[in-house]
Amino acid sequence: MNRMIKNDLLLRTVAGERVERPPVWLMRQAGRTLPGYRKIRAQVADFKTFVKSPNLVAAATVEPVELLGVDAAILFSDILVIPEAMGLDYELIEKKGPWFPKTIQSYEDVASLKTGHDAAKALDYVYQGIKATQNLLNNSVPLLGFAGAPWTIFAYMVEGSGSKTFSKAKQMLYQQPDLAHALLEKITDATIAYLQQKIEHGVHLVQLFDSWGGVLSPTLYEQFSLPYLQKICQAIQSVPITIFAKGAWFALADIAQLDCQVIGLDWTITPQQARSWIGEHKIMQGNLDPCQLYGTPGQVANATHQMLQQFDRRHIANLGHGVYPDTPLSSIQAFVATVKAFRYK
Amino acid sequence: MNRMIKNDLLLRTVAGERVERPPVWLMRQAGRTLPGYRKIRAQVADFKTFVKSPNLVAAATVEPVELLGVDAAILFSDILVIPEAMGLDYELIEKKGPWFPKTIQSYEDVASLKTGHDAAKALDYVYQGIKATQNLLNNSVPLLGFAGAPWTIFAYMVEGSGSKTFSKAKQMLYQQPDLAHALLEKITDATIAYLQQKIEHGVHLVQLFDSWGGVLSPTLYEQFSLPYLQKICQAIQSVPITIFAKGAWFALADIAQLDCQVIGLDWTITPQQARSWIGEHKIMQGNLDPCQLYGTPGQVANATHQMLQQFDRRHIANLGHGVYPDTPLSSIQAFVATVKAFRYK
Repeated sequence: MNRMIKNDLLLRTVAGERVERPPVWLMRQAGRTLPGYRKIRAQVADFKTFVKSPNLVAAATVEPVELLGVDAAILFSDILVIPEAMGLDYELIEKKGPWFPKTIQSYEDVASLKTGHDAAKALDYVYQGIKATQNLLNNSVPLLGFAGAPWTIFAYMVEGSGSKTFSKAKQMLYQQPDLAHALLEKITDATIAYLQQKIEHGVHLVQLFDSWGGVLSPTLYEQFSLPYLQKICQAIQSVPITIFAKGAWFALADIAQLDCQVIGLDWTITPQQARSWIGEHKIMQGNLDPCQLYGTPGQVANATHQMLQQFDRRHIANLGHGVYPDTPLSSIQAFVATVKAFRYK
Repeated sequence: MNRMIKNDLLLRTVAGERVERPPVWLMRQAGRTLPGYRKIRAQVADFKTFVKSPNLVAAATVEPVELLGVDAAILFSDILVIPEAMGLDYELIEKKGPWFPKTIQSYEDVASLKTGHDAAKALDYVYQGIKATQNLLNNSVPLLGFAGAPWTIFAYMVEGSGSKTFSKAKQMLYQQPDLAHALLEKITDATIAYLQQKIEHGVHLVQLFDSWGGVLSPTLYEQFSLPYLQKICQAIQSVPITIFAKGAWFALADIAQLDCQVIGLDWTITPQQARSWIGEHKIMQGNLDPCQLYGTPGQVANATHQMLQQFDRRHIANLGHGVYPDTPLSSIQAFVATVKAFRYK
């Protein structure tokens, strides 16, 4: 599998091979903490234009591979490209995050959204970004693609913005479960078509971010998130899939039953506890507290080393959440260097 | 214990007596969803004046007892009265929440804060509110008092506002742990003095809200939250203590080792899982998803009944978080009525 990739440590780990050390990358590894990123970002006025510019996307995606020496690139993008491609436009409000002028509230609203292949077609700029990235990467490391989990995309499309509780989105689950399922189905179909196109254009793995899984109860998660994750896992058989459901510790044992290969962990769970719920067969990814990177490089190295010792061999080193924008570069470097110097006994 | 209270179901439950049904109250049961609350709130321009008006506080506290028939009153107040009493002023920004013009960043800042009894003295309006409430309650039900857990109060005082990550507050834990402990000690002392005064003036139980416990890792929780919770538990021996650490599922087994009587649960944990971590000796409180109350009264009754059957006898019925302001009154009534009609077999 993909032996053409020069550094295939991540792919070998995911395939269950016995590796010498865990591969390492960081969620949001391309971000404001990197000097190149800030220059690339400054070339366009707004974030959405940035995400739609294949050459800028490629430059941002490749920088951490070159500067930090991580074992994987992750295509620079945003989970909200899917609602937009389905026809639900959003704005990014300074310091507040995404805001949708119109939200989904009725069957008519759901019917007005573009379906699978039509939505996926609207995302050609992403596929062009993959091509441009592959040109720069030159097969040095594997390229990850990502999408939001259907529940998380649903949460934004119904709530209309970020939220601590997503109570309006959850309200629909309780009041109009059939409508909620209709929307989730449509998001799922678009996501599958989108991921298939990404794979077609060259990503080697995909990760699903269920960023708001943690606001659901175990019962709601089982009804409104898991089935759609599984539908995606069953439709995508050609590359490995990672599921990262932040805050949804209570669903880990169920997620472990899905047809995915890797499970992402946030920093609130110990590796031992996670393994006991997940079982032996999945690779685990994570989970250093991103705030640990505010410590000195020495402290970061110690904490990273401790984390690596707590995980077993089926591990991809990462943070438990995306890199925060005010993280010192020296700490990110200490994190990566510590993982790369580590050797399994 | 407090046999003078006419409805002492909550106190008997907390004392471990064999009761006929669980007692019921709701976090934020006095709120915008109640008609009386909206009238009381309209009498003053801002929320902080409201909290400092003993007669309005008493009226707001008593309304849910009279209107909903809950088994306990909880003194209407705010956890941020403590930073203010310590000398750190804050503003409430419309739709954004609390904002502190100055935050705590140095030993000088910590030294400038008022200590225990001086801070507690500044909260006389709370004690007057208790007196006014007791006059209205006329010993009908027990009165709960509450405070923020030291970590949660620390989080606001260092971060300066609400936050999804509290990354600035956590930054201090990693970068300046000794400074963090100095501030946590001072908050703890003020909280103990404050709770002692509240008890002196007549509250029958106290609850500590560790609302931001869930942003910590297990290791940080053990270092920066648990020891201060325990210090409070050891200082307060005259009334039962409830600890509600929202999102901190990973710390439940440790919290169960503290000298507290009741442990609050959010809606992400099943009663069975919680009991297995907490052990046999503590009373559990919670944990219906507050969004479940968006359902019809019939759906709420079903879900509440299911929840009661999953808990054992050592249970106080409540939500897993405060009542959301747009909750229909009819659903709150269905929740309370279902618990009151329930009988243990």
